[in-house]
Amino acid sequence: MDKKKIELGHGSGGLLTRELLDELIFSTFRNPYIDQKHDGAVLPLTGEVVISTDSFVVSPIFFKGGDIGELAVNGSVNDVAMCGGIPKYLSLAFIIEEGLPVEDLKKILQSISIAAKRSGVEVVTGDTKVVEKGKGDRIFINTTAVGMKHPGADITMSRILPGDQIIVNNSLAQHGMAIMSEREGLAFESAISSDTTNLNYVVSDILDRFGTQIHLLRDATRGGVAGVLSEIAVDTSLGVFLKEEAIPLQKQVAAACDLLGLDPLYVANEGVFLVVAHQDIAHDLLEALKVQDPEASPAIIGEITTAHPEMVVLESKIGGRRVVTPLIGEQLPRIC
Amino acid sequence: MDKKKIELGHGSGGLLTRELLDELIFSTFRNPYIDQKHDGAVLPLTGEVVISTDSFVVSPIFFKGGDIGELAVNGSVNDVAMCGGIPKYLSLAFIIEEGLPVEDLKKILQSISIAAKRSGVEVVTGDTKVVEKGKGDRIFINTTAVGMKHPGADITMSRILPGDQIIVNNSLAQHGMAIMSEREGLAFESAISSDTTNLNYVVSDILDRFGTQIHLLRDATRGGVAGVLSEIAVDTSLGVFLKEEAIPLQKQVAAACDLLGLDPLYVANEGVFLVVAHQDIAHDLLEALKVQDPEASPAIIGEITTAHPEMVVLESKIGGRRVVTPLIGEQLPRIC
Repeated sequence: MDKKKIELGHGSGGLLTRELLDELIFSTFRNPYIDQKHDGAVLPLTGEVVISTDSFVVSPIFFKGGDIGELAVNGSVNDVAMCGGIPKYLSLAFIIEEGLPVEDLKKILQSISIAAKRSGVEVVTGDTKVVEKGKGDRIFINTTAVGMKHPGADITMSRILPGDQIIVNNSLAQHGMAIMSEREGLAFESAISSDTTNLNYVVSDILDRFGTQIHLLRDATRGGVAGVLSEIAVDTSLGVFLKEEAIPLQKQVAAACDLLGLDPLYVANEGVFLVVAHQDIAHDLLEALKVQDPEASPAIIGEITTAHPEMVVLESKIGGRRVVTPLIGEQLPRIC
Repeated sequence: MDKKKIELGHGSGGLLTRELLDELIFSTFRNPYIDQKHDGAVLPLTGEVVISTDSFVVSPIFFKGGDIGELAVNGSVNDVAMCGGIPKYLSLAFIIEEGLPVEDLKKILQSISIAAKRSGVEVVTGDTKVVEKGKGDRIFINTTAVGMKHPGADITMSRILPGDQIIVNNSLAQHGMAIMSEREGLAFESAISSDTTNLNYVVSDILDRFGTQIHLLRDATRGGVAGVLSEIAVDTSLGVFLKEEAIPLQKQVAAACDLLGLDPLYVANEGVFLVVAHQDIAHDLLEALKVQDPEASPAIIGEITTAHPEMVVLESKIGGRRVVTPLIGEQLPRIC
């Protein structure tokens, strides 16, 4: 690449586009699918195919613990995992604002490459568009992940039963607070890192072991844990009962939330998922999560109940109860 | 939807997002996949799966002959078809600029719905993000199309042979000139319409009939016919010989190109594809294209040759020859 900044011409379909693709993109993601340089890819898949798409518009694009590239891979990989899929392939589409330093794009491609390897997916096809300065914001990334359904998975809202336990794999609110600190220029004593990570292997492992005893999987991204639980309550017409003291939260994250007046239940995560599982296997599942990631803080945070249909109720540390309502609008815009 | 304009909160993952999804999006694309309202979809697909992704940033978003929604469906559907796939499913991801009138979004959703029905694909999963005013440009759309490989297809650059004929299905440069006229406020005697259309059925038909005698399929979008042919010449190390008089061009499109000093070979199309086919079946294929669309102007425009490796050479109407080089940078930015 001769140029130091992305120009409109890099999105034209001409020689500049080709240079960008050949020197940066194709060379980063070499595999038999992308090497074809066609408009798409032909993939060997049999059985039930799981697909999920997400666009990423996070600002800033680089933050403590990750960047937009890593987020874009993990986000779609995790969504496929949450549907009971084993992600295998990824499409990758960029909308770049004219003037983005080529160095930034290189860093992002590197992150994408590392994150893809880590989660075992191959980037098989893509697209690059460039928009004029002031018509975008540095870079937006869309990824679509495709995979096979795990043979033991039967993940659907309608399988949730009263008595099911609600388990989270790790402590909440890290991603949102990392982005927020970055934006507001807050320096906490020990800086908060995004929790962005791929969840496909841990999900695959618990599906191997507990199969259809797992009724629902959902990652708690935008809208946070409260958002997911509100959806569950409304869509199942059952109630969700939460114990505040069981909810895992890092000390500095709790402090940052306090400082900014944010409720961690609503803050976005990028490496936290909820499992709604049959009560018989909940404790074994918790143990399995602990073994999978000894540094994580998995916990049973609540259960499904018939006591208060369509409502999420939180029992506070001092025993009071309050209804957890979903957010109406925006807590932290452009968090992912 | 109470609101008349899209707000940041519509991308938050909270109640506003849910209202947008339920009232506009889920209700437009009802099918068993999207009705699950999960983060992704599980699809019944077996054999080889074809996938393609594209982001659409066209400006203006409404133009004569189509809009960004229709373009976004046809674009990915056509890319799957060009890989020898039969498109079945579509993911749909929006990046909306705060302030977009809800009416515009409704119109676009309607176009998407109609275009999806016309090409026989189902919208199975999606995503909506909202960015602040001035950080996007009304609406960007990413689609990823997924389908099955046509059993008779073997589409790859490496199968191209000297003597292969190059066929286009229709006259060139309509989409680019339609967008250009719209932008420049040009009023031609009879306004030029975009040629955006789904090509999957015509491709499937010719694959049924001519199978592996079809060596390459490629739609001539950004970079135009010249862009595709330059790629073929470079990637195969063969030459491409074109006859200007054979290239189909509507009178008013030719006039508009003259007026604006644009070469129609470089102008983007959204319903034109090239077939590189074995010479033995080229004329039958041409006849098949004529039967498929009696209003189109398919033509054999040239052939593959060993005479001038890696070069595209055009013989002009008066017999002169010139090399057709690919564009370096931008002819018409944000054409798709």
